[in-house]
Amino acid sequence: MAADLGGTNLRMAAIDYSGSILHRVKRSTPHSDDAASIVDAIVESATECLESAGGDASGHAIGLAVPATIKAAEGVIVSAPNLPSLNGLNLSDAVCKRLGLAVVLENDGTSAAIGEHWLGASKDVNNSIFITLGTGVGGGIIINGIPLRGIDGTAGEVGHICVEPMGAPCGCGSCGCVEQYASATAIVRMTREMLALYPNSIINGAEPLASLAVYEAGVSGDELAIEVYRKMGYYLGIAVAGLINILNPEMIVFGGGMSAAWDLFFESARDQIRKRAFRQPCERAKLVRAKLGDDAGMLGVARLAFLAKG
Amino acid sequence: MAADLGGTNLRMAAIDYSGSILHRVKRSTPHSDDAASIVDAIVESATECLESAGGDASGHAIGLAVPATIKAAEGVIVSAPNLPSLNGLNLSDAVCKRLGLAVVLENDGTSAAIGEHWLGASKDVNNSIFITLGTGVGGGIIINGIPLRGIDGTAGEVGHICVEPMGAPCGCGSCGCVEQYASATAIVRMTREMLALYPNSIINGAEPLASLAVYEAGVSGDELAIEVYRKMGYYLGIAVAGLINILNPEMIVFGGGMSAAWDLFFESARDQIRKRAFRQPCERAKLVRAKLGDDAGMLGVARLAFLAKG
Repeated sequence: MAADLGGTNLRMAAIDYSGSILHRVKRSTPHSDDAASIVDAIVESATECLESAGGDASGHAIGLAVPATIKAAEGVIVSAPNLPSLNGLNLSDAVCKRLGLAVVLENDGTSAAIGEHWLGASKDVNNSIFITLGTGVGGGIIINGIPLRGIDGTAGEVGHICVEPMGAPCGCGSCGCVEQYASATAIVRMTREMLALYPNSIINGAEPLASLAVYEAGVSGDELAIEVYRKMGYYLGIAVAGLINILNPEMIVFGGGMSAAWDLFFESARDQIRKRAFRQPCERAKLVRAKLGDDAGMLGVARLAFLAKG
Repeated sequence: MAADLGGTNLRMAAIDYSGSILHRVKRSTPHSDDAASIVDAIVESATECLESAGGDASGHAIGLAVPATIKAAEGVIVSAPNLPSLNGLNLSDAVCKRLGLAVVLENDGTSAAIGEHWLGASKDVNNSIFITLGTGVGGGIIINGIPLRGIDGTAGEVGHICVEPMGAPCGCGSCGCVEQYASATAIVRMTREMLALYPNSIINGAEPLASLAVYEAGVSGDELAIEVYRKMGYYLGIAVAGLINILNPEMIVFGGGMSAAWDLFFESARDQIRKRAFRQPCERAKLVRAKLGDDAGMLGVARLAFLAKG
């Protein structure tokens, strides 16, 4: 069993050893100041999945992919910027006490990287980088088949590579992070910033503005939208070229909701990668779209839960 | 026995299993269009070191740290930008045939990272990044005690992280690489660019201009020199913050000749790192100077040669 605890939705599934999803639950992530409501939501969803699997907790484990830096060994949430009530909580203990089954925690970006490596786009290579382009930009790194977690478990924060030193302020405290140019939030901001330059854009007047509207405008040939996604690709390419020079991976997998706009940003990203990465690792690194969609994180942390159970 | 083949000097030493240097040879690296002259220089230097050790090649191996991307398993130089006559050469075979001893090749940045991890600044940690600040900027990455080489052996090119998207053109074909702001070459270029803004600088008129003169001016309080090194630290800090967010290392070791200017660039580098890296990995990552000086590369590749011999 595994869950992906997002800032917006909590998704849970009963998953078998082959990675088949037997039952799914999806609900809104509770947004209160009280961590207990999130723990309740996890327990209720898990209980439903468990019942679908016969109701017996023995033989089961639960993996939780969380949008947080964690101490994996202790099961503690160190810092969850989008769910701050969890900061400092031993989420593994809290869930284990209620459900009576083993709990494995993992960062959501690393979970998704593991999922794609297990069953998705990167299953045939042992060195890959997963980049999730969503509300923010996150990711995970697999080296020689093993997730790179770093000494504190915070590795893989590829969204916070600086690509414009005096650029847009980032929630992390820095500015010019690639997250500020290649996320859904960034698409909306960049569109607003450039609206006045494109008075004839069909986006003018669309309120509230969402990245989907910009995407649709781009598909229909709107010049403003095309320029916004070109800019996304430009900065994403700068970050990816750096990753290629640093890590020399076999593959870079792009997931998250924004990866659907691939045709609008890929060409400018690839141009920057070719310009900025060394020739040999650039030719090596395959640039591909993720295959598991929203399930990558759940499947990845399910894999960890299976491995932990032995 | 081990050698560090640099663009300027070839340094060779007889080294024992503890890392003690028993005999040293240093000579200029031959700069002809003929790879044979470089092989000759390696063989002559090795012969001198071998004679100092008793003259018997049995029981010896030779490690070669090279400024190149390599195919380590085959012993082939893939690309050596500063010694292009070596491109495509099987340097291991060429040296092995002449000397009759086992040859181990490694990239110089990775060799230095291994050397510092074996006997230097990072010997007590298993996750470190070595950054060499010299004529260019290079480096090597150690993860869980193992060098990160990437799938083609090109990993660790930390000098070619982009820190200014429209910045100074780089020899690698990109522009705005950190090498263009944190190398000796960059110090000279930035000084020239800013000279007109500082007509009273003591550097005015110093020709040919070298980074050492800028360093000395900075130590004596010259405002232009101080600003140039501040700028170096600013951009170096941006690159290092990215590495911390991506890799979450325990330590970052700064070596190379330019690291001597530590007091002039460190504060501005640290300010950017604190601003731009996530709090937890930022607090974790110790920023230290290398301990082995010019010997890091030789010692690192000697270590590999010992390990290869078993």
